[in-house]
Amino acid sequence: MPLYALTLEYDGTPFVGWQRQGSGLSIQQVLEEAGAALDGGVMPLAIAAGRTDAGVHAEGQVAQLALQREMAPERLREALNFHMKPHPLVVVRAALAPASWNARFSAVQRGYRYRILNRRARPALEAGRVWHVPAPLDAAAMHAAAQGLLGRHDFSAYRAAACQAKTPVRTLGRLDVMRQGEEVLILAEARSFLHHQIRNLAGTLLEVGLGKRGVEWPRRVLESQDRSKAGQTAPPEGLTFLFVRYGEEIGWL
Amino acid sequence: MPLYALTLEYDGTPFVGWQRQGSGLSIQQVLEEAGAALDGGVMPLAIAAGRTDAGVHAEGQVAQLALQREMAPERLREALNFHMKPHPLVVVRAALAPASWNARFSAVQRGYRYRILNRRARPALEAGRVWHVPAPLDAAAMHAAAQGLLGRHDFSAYRAAACQAKTPVRTLGRLDVMRQGEEVLILAEARSFLHHQIRNLAGTLLEVGLGKRGVEWPRRVLESQDRSKAGQTAPPEGLTFLFVRYGEEIGWL
Repeated sequence: MPLYALTLEYDGTPFVGWQRQGSGLSIQQVLEEAGAALDGGVMPLAIAAGRTDAGVHAEGQVAQLALQREMAPERLREALNFHMKPHPLVVVRAALAPASWNARFSAVQRGYRYRILNRRARPALEAGRVWHVPAPLDAAAMHAAAQGLLGRHDFSAYRAAACQAKTPVRTLGRLDVMRQGEEVLILAEARSFLHHQIRNLAGTLLEVGLGKRGVEWPRRVLESQDRSKAGQTAPPEGLTFLFVRYGEEIGWL
Repeated sequence: MPLYALTLEYDGTPFVGWQRQGSGLSIQQVLEEAGAALDGGVMPLAIAAGRTDAGVHAEGQVAQLALQREMAPERLREALNFHMKPHPLVVVRAALAPASWNARFSAVQRGYRYRILNRRARPALEAGRVWHVPAPLDAAAMHAAAQGLLGRHDFSAYRAAACQAKTPVRTLGRLDVMRQGEEVLILAEARSFLHHQIRNLAGTLLEVGLGKRGVEWPRRVLESQDRSKAGQTAPPEGLTFLFVRYGEEIGWL
C-alpha cells in the first residue's frame, strides 16, 4: 500500500482541530473522506505531524495517508484538493514517502508562529488570524525573557492539564519575539511541543510585554514546574503551524 | 461642525463596496450609521478617498466624516469601532481635519496592492484575499511590461465602461511586479485611478506573465485606447487599497 506525504495549508477557524471528534468537523475527517473518495470508499487513516487545536491554522502541516491506490503525487494532490472543496484545507505538496517514514514520529523539528495584533483598533482584515492585544507591548523585553527558556527543560509549568505526552521534558530550540509593524510575532521551534505549550508561553510572555512582570519571571515559572504560576493560555487563532523538518529527504512534488 | 479624517481597514468580502446602494451593505453605510449613533441619530455623510468595488479590501482607505458633536479623535475612533461591530471594518487612526480638507479631492497619491497566488493548490488561508492563478507566471516579464505604462497617458484601454471620470488621462507613478514566495504582487501608485484601472492592468499583465503575449503588448494596448484590446478584469478579491497621501499634514492619533 503506497504511503503518501502531504503538506497541508488550512484556515483552522471552521474546524474542531486536527483530530476527529464527535463535536464537529475536523481536518482529519475532511482529508480522510477525500482519500476514501479516491479509494473506492475505503476510509484511510491520516496521521499528522502536529494535532493542532480548534482555531489553529497551518501553512505547512504534514500528514501521511496510506491509500490502496497508487497515483502520481501531483495527481493525488489535485484529486484530494478537488474532493476537499469547499473547505479551507488544501494539499500544497505531495510525495510518495518511504514505508519506514511516519509523519509524526519521523519529525525532527517543528516550527510555529504566534501573531499578536498590538494596536487599539480590533482586527478587520486579520480577524481570526491574530490575538488582539490593545495595550502597547515591549517586544524586546518579551524576546529577552524568551531566551531564558531555550534548551532542554521540564516544561510542566507550560503544559495543558489534558496533555497526554509521556514526559514533560522538551528541548526548545528557538523562541524569538519581534515587532513587525503593528504586530508582535513569536517564532517557536522544537523537535516537539507539549499540548498548549506555545499558547501558554505566549500568554506568559505577554505579562512581560505589558510590564506586569519582569524579564526573569517566565524562567522562574519554568523552574516552578507549576502550571498555576504561568500566564493565561493565549487564544488559538493567533497560532499557525509553519513547517516540519524530517531527517530523511522527502521528494516533494 | 468638526470634520474628522479616518484611516479605515476593512475586509471587502461581505460588502457591496464603499458606496451605498440598494443591493446590500456598503462600507459607507456602516460608517455613517456608526456616526449617526454618536450624533443623536442624525445621519452624517462619509466621503472616501477611493470608492472601492465589492470584494476589494483596504488597509489604509481614508474617509472624512463631519459630525455635529466634537470629540477627541481617539475617543471617536473607539466609539465608531464599538458601533461598527461585528462588521470587518475598523477605524485605525483618526484626526481632526482642517475644514478645507477633502478626503477625496485633497489626495495627491494613492497606493494599491494586487495579490496573485501563483501555485497549483487553491488558497485555503488566503481565500478571498488573492487571485488564484495556477499556471506559472513570469513576474520579471510582467514587471518589464509594466514599466512601459508609467507616466501620463490616456488610459481609455484600461478603463471600465461604467467609469464616470471626466477624463481618461492619468499619471501612473509606479507599477511594480515582484514575486514573493508563492505570490506575485503588483504595486500601483498614482494621484488617482480610473474605475477598474488596476484590475484591468493586472488582467493584461497576466497575459504577459503566462507567456501568451510579449512584453511590449500592454503598451500597444494602451496606445490603442481601446478597452476591447486589453486583458480580462482581474477579480476584486486580490486588490487592497494600501494608502492615501495628502499635501497637507494630518495630525493622526
